[in-house]
Amino acid sequence: MKFNVYLSMPEKSVLRLPIIKIAEGDSIKTDDALAIEEPLEIRLEYGTKDNRQIKNVSVTMRTPGNDAELALGFLFTEGIISQRDYVISAAHSFIACAENKENVMQISLQQGVVPNLNNTERNFYTTSSCGVCGKGSIASIKTVSAFNNDTIENQISNDVLYFLPAILQKHQEVFASTGGLHASALFDSAGELVMVREDVGRHNALDKLIGAALTEGMLPLNQHILLLSGRASFELVQKVAMAGINIIAAVGAPSSLAVQLAEEFKITLIGFLRGKRFNIYTQPQRILLPKYEDSY
Amino acid sequence: MKFNVYLSMPEKSVLRLPIIKIAEGDSIKTDDALAIEEPLEIRLEYGTKDNRQIKNVSVTMRTPGNDAELALGFLFTEGIISQRDYVISAAHSFIACAENKENVMQISLQQGVVPNLNNTERNFYTTSSCGVCGKGSIASIKTVSAFNNDTIENQISNDVLYFLPAILQKHQEVFASTGGLHASALFDSAGELVMVREDVGRHNALDKLIGAALTEGMLPLNQHILLLSGRASFELVQKVAMAGINIIAAVGAPSSLAVQLAEEFKITLIGFLRGKRFNIYTQPQRILLPKYEDSY
Repeated sequence: MKFNVYLSMPEKSVLRLPIIKIAEGDSIKTDDALAIEEPLEIRLEYGTKDNRQIKNVSVTMRTPGNDAELALGFLFTEGIISQRDYVISAAHSFIACAENKENVMQISLQQGVVPNLNNTERNFYTTSSCGVCGKGSIASIKTVSAFNNDTIENQISNDVLYFLPAILQKHQEVFASTGGLHASALFDSAGELVMVREDVGRHNALDKLIGAALTEGMLPLNQHILLLSGRASFELVQKVAMAGINIIAAVGAPSSLAVQLAEEFKITLIGFLRGKRFNIYTQPQRILLPKYEDSY
Repeated sequence: MKFNVYLSMPEKSVLRLPIIKIAEGDSIKTDDALAIEEPLEIRLEYGTKDNRQIKNVSVTMRTPGNDAELALGFLFTEGIISQRDYVISAAHSFIACAENKENVMQISLQQGVVPNLNNTERNFYTTSSCGVCGKGSIASIKTVSAFNNDTIENQISNDVLYFLPAILQKHQEVFASTGGLHASALFDSAGELVMVREDVGRHNALDKLIGAALTEGMLPLNQHILLLSGRASFELVQKVAMAGINIIAAVGAPSSLAVQLAEEFKITLIGFLRGKRFNIYTQPQRILLPKYEDSY
């Protein structure tokens, strides 16, 4: 069998947002393309002719596009359905809330096919009926977070930011030997390293760091900077909000929902921190912008 | 408050395994340090003095070390407990199986403290009592996977491998504009691109690809090569096994459990595929090793 190159759907996958770009002592207002991150709820409809039921199997944070494939692939690779033939239809179901996005994919099974739901029980992100959109995801966190960043003064200079990745690299011991670990590092606002945690899972590295800070009675971490060795996703910004951190600097790219959540919680979010460059996505007032260098 | 630099515990976090290293037309047997990936079950013990109960809150795939911090940080950032003072103790609990690893962390709460378990229901990886070790995780997949790679002939030359990342890069459209997406790409054994899927979540990119292949009746994918744009974790190798893929090439590092699962399923696992270099972690017989170049 000969296949064409199947690609995903970029037009659904990218969001442009205004940013401030800092490069070599200069700052400009521009915009940046972000990968969209939105929840997808995977629902399974199954049963006999007279007794159909619907079960929410999983909610995953995904980039929109190819949602039917994602749902089918998930159900198959998790061992929940074993045959393509068992599936009658895969269809988006709209959710009744303000954003009204295509964030539910319902897979209907042939009459009498029993899905294997025992082996793997997984990943309910939110259980509220209207939680499956960006706004719902953010709202569900707002109800839990104890800290408020609105009035916290925590300012750092761009010069401090430049050095953070190199300091982290020096202390990232397991990564140095394996190349296989994510890190979260906490710095004070003068750029001095406070602690580092590493893990194969980026969310685990951050949980370890926040768990250590909690144990030491350091929360809220509102006079600090959090450095992430990779990308900034919704899940990481959620944990940051819970710990009262108000400045995140990521070496990699942020997702759309990470930026939206950071804005909602008045968190300063920096991405692509590499060399003497970075992008400010939200709340730039905490960064003392570069003075123009006298290069004449 | 002034803190020292707290680091994680590298001695618990790294495993050395024998590999074959291919570099510039030469292949050598050596060994490589891998980041350890193992499940951690987080248990909560709570209730009144006379009525204590234990609940499994989550299983996460993590790198061992700082497990108490990880559990506390998880419970706090998920809004399940709101105060450090609520916690009486955090202790490893050994599991009664052959590997007997420290893969359960039990957090005990003060009498009368009620954890908030309503808001977030998450991530049970396995529910079996002896599933919380590498061996258990692998066994639980063996019972579900339909395909057997034992006798499948699928050989590729090292020259084919070298070109895969560049071909993927040309087709990774959303990543090109955002820098924020993972990709899974399927190639035939001659190195021709069959399809690409992208997502903010690496597991979603692979689910989309396998879902597409399932829809097209292409499974098992045992005459193909799967290219991963980043690291290879247990979860990704699990999905690969379910789809009958027998050659994985990752641009990044594999975890310990990814290698162990690949070995168990007779999957060839390649990591650090960059330039004209790569490492073979398992089942090298599928790779036609380089001829020694006549450089004299």
